[in-house]
Amino acid sequence: MKTLNTPTRAQALESFFQSWSFQPRTEQIPLAEACGRVLAETQYSRHALPVVRASGMDGIGVDSSRFLNGIPDTSQWILGVDYARADTGDDFDDRFDAVIPIENITFDSRNAPRISPETQVSAGSNVRGPGSMVKEGDLLMEKNLPLRPADLAVLATGGVTEVPVYKKPRVAFIPAGSELIPAGTPLSRGKNIDSNSIMAEHTLNEMGARPICYPIVKDDLPALKEALRRALAESDIVIVSGGSSKGDEDYGVRLIQAEGELIFQGIAAAPGRPMSAGIVGGKPVVNISGPTLAAFYGLDWFVRPIVAHCLSVPPLRRQKVTGVLTEDLSCPPAMEILCKVQVRRNEDGGYTVRPCSRNNATMSSMMASNALYISKIGGAGYKKGDTIEVELLRSEEYLMI
Amino acid sequence: MKTLNTPTRAQALESFFQSWSFQPRTEQIPLAEACGRVLAETQYSRHALPVVRASGMDGIGVDSSRFLNGIPDTSQWILGVDYARADTGDDFDDRFDAVIPIENITFDSRNAPRISPETQVSAGSNVRGPGSMVKEGDLLMEKNLPLRPADLAVLATGGVTEVPVYKKPRVAFIPAGSELIPAGTPLSRGKNIDSNSIMAEHTLNEMGARPICYPIVKDDLPALKEALRRALAESDIVIVSGGSSKGDEDYGVRLIQAEGELIFQGIAAAPGRPMSAGIVGGKPVVNISGPTLAAFYGLDWFVRPIVAHCLSVPPLRRQKVTGVLTEDLSCPPAMEILCKVQVRRNEDGGYTVRPCSRNNATMSSMMASNALYISKIGGAGYKKGDTIEVELLRSEEYLMI
Repeated sequence: MKTLNTPTRAQALESFFQSWSFQPRTEQIPLAEACGRVLAETQYSRHALPVVRASGMDGIGVDSSRFLNGIPDTSQWILGVDYARADTGDDFDDRFDAVIPIENITFDSRNAPRISPETQVSAGSNVRGPGSMVKEGDLLMEKNLPLRPADLAVLATGGVTEVPVYKKPRVAFIPAGSELIPAGTPLSRGKNIDSNSIMAEHTLNEMGARPICYPIVKDDLPALKEALRRALAESDIVIVSGGSSKGDEDYGVRLIQAEGELIFQGIAAAPGRPMSAGIVGGKPVVNISGPTLAAFYGLDWFVRPIVAHCLSVPPLRRQKVTGVLTEDLSCPPAMEILCKVQVRRNEDGGYTVRPCSRNNATMSSMMASNALYISKIGGAGYKKGDTIEVELLRSEEYLMI
Repeated sequence: MKTLNTPTRAQALESFFQSWSFQPRTEQIPLAEACGRVLAETQYSRHALPVVRASGMDGIGVDSSRFLNGIPDTSQWILGVDYARADTGDDFDDRFDAVIPIENITFDSRNAPRISPETQVSAGSNVRGPGSMVKEGDLLMEKNLPLRPADLAVLATGGVTEVPVYKKPRVAFIPAGSELIPAGTPLSRGKNIDSNSIMAEHTLNEMGARPICYPIVKDDLPALKEALRRALAESDIVIVSGGSSKGDEDYGVRLIQAEGELIFQGIAAAPGRPMSAGIVGGKPVVNISGPTLAAFYGLDWFVRPIVAHCLSVPPLRRQKVTGVLTEDLSCPPAMEILCKVQVRRNEDGGYTVRPCSRNNATMSSMMASNALYISKIGGAGYKKGDTIEVELLRSEEYLMI
């Protein structure tokens, strides 16, 4: 593997997107199933609401013509004849054309209203006309945005019952490695647990893709070729996890070269430096490194933007916070290194950032961290007390001491 | 309704949590189904990985005793006899006790390795011992945190196949209103579409609750009582949407008073000021206002912290950004007003904030906004050009111009 021409993450993504073209596809689905999906066509209201009118206040509907000379004698008024209940949002009988707020009214024992003398009543007082909530043709929601719960309410209000959304790209995940056993299988010498499949499945779900997880494939080129062909037939994107080492078993690259076009081999980023990707039969095939943190990184920086492209959404921008390092953070300058860190929010509202040392931290403490920092190529590292901007992997309420 | 003693949101929450006690409940579920659930007990590794050892590099395993006097003659070495393949993470035969990196080796045509003369080999070189990835008893994950995809990988690596998580609270949602029709039903004069049920269902899902959505109930006290009793039997928390007006149909409060203890009626917050809540049979019953934006607000500030309590997690803190107002923003000082705003991120990295005027904006433009501002009681409002801190309702990548 040449080191000199190893691309950066940005260069690798650029090469990839130059080699791959994909037209996002859409499907029509019921609104009730659309939460989290990405709207594919701007939606407009199909009707007006209210249809005719609605009370703008909690109150009573009255005939404004009886108020032309001030407040009339209401002592004999009868509900349903002289006035109507008209709470906010209610329509009411056409005999009435104005609403008096309930605050201006007391009711006597026979349910006749007494109206405060300062009350002003004219035709249309406190009455909202047709379409005052939404008019036919009103913009409900722009396309290329994920549907939030409140968006579903807006679309329902506008009479939308089905929505066009982008199809979820089907992403195959093939765990490769003769040493791997499925999670939950008894462990024995020389075996390692396939923990990447469960991570990939749920990471892909969160990205908005449809994961298709395959059984473990041994380090055997014919078996891998067979798995790849099956995956290509059933999916839009294929990820092979593991088999990316530089030794004899560097099956990932051989597989891509045998079946299609290799776009890059090796990346100026770690962990996961031996990663490669190519196009086979028009579909992306990505070989990420097996170690869990390397797989996390590869899924995050490379697969995530591909899935975002399929969904016509911009790439994720995580919330960033700036905090003070509790110890030195040094990274080799030749690569963009994924540094897991633990962020805490102090009582004064500031943040501290504790690096999970790549040398001493266990895999679990690295993976459990709540934020990450990607070092810059050529960067000189940081000293304890320096401030550093990191990306959050947990929502801010989990950063409190 | 008294206005003077109307509680603020914070006062209402404090009264509520003083009146209600709830012990979060747990259940054991398969790891594969645990994504997004909240871990209820801190988890430790059940075993060590690697079991015995693993190569720390891509390379070959050798017997270090043959290197005591420097690099031996390897021209007759045979794979499986004199050396073994040992890529990163691989165990290898006990005859070998050190790994030579593949970068230091070339293979001749008969597959005998030629080893670079500068190579240093001693017992254990580039070999990771038992537990170097994870040791038995190592901390895998602290309790009271939601399980992310990467956390599932850590737990799987540590031999965890089932996890104790907090049970999702069951939250009943009862849409009340004689004028309501289900979404998708033909619209006619005087009718309004129940758009709150679809919003509540998915909002509750996002909070981590299990929503139970009931059919529309008319504004009729016996029917509401019947629905409430059924909901109380089937759920931990009951939300009644609508029926909270100040007019004759103020069923929500009458219902709570008839069946249990009213905690507050009316709130110094808008929209949704007529909101009320109480405890019936030890369970929270919340009556939120019917208008969609009021229902959004009530779910967000009142129901969300209750659900968080059931899940033993801190209340949500949304990402905040500070931006420049594009126009004046005035809010009545007597209440905490929900102001929907549209935030844009400029090319210079700054933000602008455009208020969705509460007077002129349609319901849809309000609901479609990407951020919100809650005005402070006693606040004087803001002028165009002022800076203001707002909470994001969409992830930052959606704020770009």
